[in-house]
Amino acid sequence: MKDKKLYIPGPTEVRKDVIEEMNQCLFGHRSDTMTDLYTTIVEDTKKFLETDNNVIVLSASGTAFMESSILNLVDNKVLSATCGSFSERHANIAERLGKNVDRLEYEWGKAVKPEDVRKALEKDDYDAITCVMNETSTGIRNPLEEIGEVMEDFPDTMFIVDAISALGGDYIDIEGSNIDVIFTSVQKAFAMPPGLAVCVVSGDAYDKEVNSDSSSWYGGFQRSIDYYNRKGQTHSTPAISLMLAYRKQMKYMLEEGYENIDKRHKEMAEFTREWAYEHFDMFPEEGYMSQTVSTIKNTRGINIAELREKVDEKYNMAFANGYGSKLKEKTFRIGHMGIHDVDSIKELTDAIEDVAGL
Amino acid sequence: MKDKKLYIPGPTEVRKDVIEEMNQCLFGHRSDTMTDLYTTIVEDTKKFLETDNNVIVLSASGTAFMESSILNLVDNKVLSATCGSFSERHANIAERLGKNVDRLEYEWGKAVKPEDVRKALEKDDYDAITCVMNETSTGIRNPLEEIGEVMEDFPDTMFIVDAISALGGDYIDIEGSNIDVIFTSVQKAFAMPPGLAVCVVSGDAYDKEVNSDSSSWYGGFQRSIDYYNRKGQTHSTPAISLMLAYRKQMKYMLEEGYENIDKRHKEMAEFTREWAYEHFDMFPEEGYMSQTVSTIKNTRGINIAELREKVDEKYNMAFANGYGSKLKEKTFRIGHMGIHDVDSIKELTDAIEDVAGL
Repeated sequence: MKDKKLYIPGPTEVRKDVIEEMNQCLFGHRSDTMTDLYTTIVEDTKKFLETDNNVIVLSASGTAFMESSILNLVDNKVLSATCGSFSERHANIAERLGKNVDRLEYEWGKAVKPEDVRKALEKDDYDAITCVMNETSTGIRNPLEEIGEVMEDFPDTMFIVDAISALGGDYIDIEGSNIDVIFTSVQKAFAMPPGLAVCVVSGDAYDKEVNSDSSSWYGGFQRSIDYYNRKGQTHSTPAISLMLAYRKQMKYMLEEGYENIDKRHKEMAEFTREWAYEHFDMFPEEGYMSQTVSTIKNTRGINIAELREKVDEKYNMAFANGYGSKLKEKTFRIGHMGIHDVDSIKELTDAIEDVAGL
Repeated sequence: MKDKKLYIPGPTEVRKDVIEEMNQCLFGHRSDTMTDLYTTIVEDTKKFLETDNNVIVLSASGTAFMESSILNLVDNKVLSATCGSFSERHANIAERLGKNVDRLEYEWGKAVKPEDVRKALEKDDYDAITCVMNETSTGIRNPLEEIGEVMEDFPDTMFIVDAISALGGDYIDIEGSNIDVIFTSVQKAFAMPPGLAVCVVSGDAYDKEVNSDSSSWYGGFQRSIDYYNRKGQTHSTPAISLMLAYRKQMKYMLEEGYENIDKRHKEMAEFTREWAYEHFDMFPEEGYMSQTVSTIKNTRGINIAELREKVDEKYNMAFANGYGSKLKEKTFRIGHMGIHDVDSIKELTDAIEDVAGL
């Protein structure tokens, strides 16, 4: 199988030498070699994300942190800001865990508004609010920074952010935005092989979990943080091979720097949007468009399934259809994150132009 | 770093070509390539384990299934048979999730007795019982087959088995033993790189979760099983690279066959025990000794930390100290699982003899 170029919103392209880094024999997860590996990836991640909060790297997809953030921090009630499939998933997870969930609901394609958050938080007491940074289903980037200003006035409510398709490709000041919990999966903007998730946890969230009625063991913040502080290791056997790849790719990320990476992603997003406006239209609300995934309105009524198939056949490239039954044929999505740049995104848009005869 | 030979109870030795199998570019987790990969590993695992129950391969360590088995199946009360650190962990996880837990407690080194299980289940109503197959901390192999006979009379109580350091290296008739949920981590007897866990779930457990008050999303049985039956894929992005390694190693396992693998493990266990009786003594209760990890009593009062260090330095081999503060220096442990055989175990025992001057 010839390697397909990935423009889906994860898994995204991974450097060859990062993949090859996994080509090493295993070692004990309680050895010094492990301590060295895990300590390096945790400290490098803190450095890269410019945070002094706790960093956990867990062997799981980011969804595991959607669940454990609820289990660890919500005893009674949670407010879920929903604006698409993944933010809705966070609310569903909380409900299935038996929690009381109030939804602050937005139409798909619209962003969460800080003033609505304020009103909702003033009406009732919540253990936490969940909000997605980048709604992968619609291509919305929520104004976390402004919502964070609101959160300043509600210090007892934990600010939980699902940043799965954004973190690392779209700059966010974590502490400055009063974010208590923010997490991602590494196969998105981190451009690593899937199987690990990263979570940044504030001291307040740690304390809240310690005093909560229940919490997760596997995705527990306290347990992971304590284990790291005591031994520099993970509480359970981690995906060692994936962590080797992580260390290698994080070096590249530190080398390039968050500011430059953010700039590169901004350029890719702008390029993609300009292209979309020329040939189609953009789906998300103006002013809130994602920096890592563009959801493009299928204004030409093209058969998206067929377009994807033909681009795949002729150019060996994969981009994504619209998400879920609501948007599947009405939109299509281009992931511009990780190690891509404007030139590599242009390879895809050229291919789409050719195949669709634009 | 020269590759160290691993005789710890996981991660254990992995074939070089299985590791090299990860050296492939990623692909979309909603692609046909993924469906083919995941379907193959699920069906091959069913075939290998000789089960018609549902198989889930999750990107996580087995601990995630310790937690989700409780979240999915226990609304009210669980009976936890405890006989060491890992079975005790299962009880602790349930408590931290806010569940009512009764313990059926055994001294470390003793096995769970079927008649005690019967008495406990007759006294109260339980949603489930948790029992460890192979208590890695003490080297006990619990009599699951006999406990399973007892479970025959309690069809409403789910039989949850943590088989993390045994499954695949010690034959168990899953359906024949009335086991509803049994799981392992792949870095143990499956001899794969860590980061995946395997769970076998009965139809009864599936139904119980559907009707339960709460359940896990990430480790939910229903969600994984439904997604597999509908699409042949996983509900979240899986650790694709690790699944490539899984497919390769499972082929080897099918080639050798469960019966032969079981026989090879029995031989390794018998060899290790004979060696232990000659130079030391065995720690676990007679008649209940593990087929995958031997816990040896340090009758000579050797400094185990020093012994491990010297064997490491001179022979580049790792075995394990006793587990936890209770047993750290009083015992040591040899993992004889995965791709090892009597000859490779003898390399370690020879090394220990040499270094300890036995």
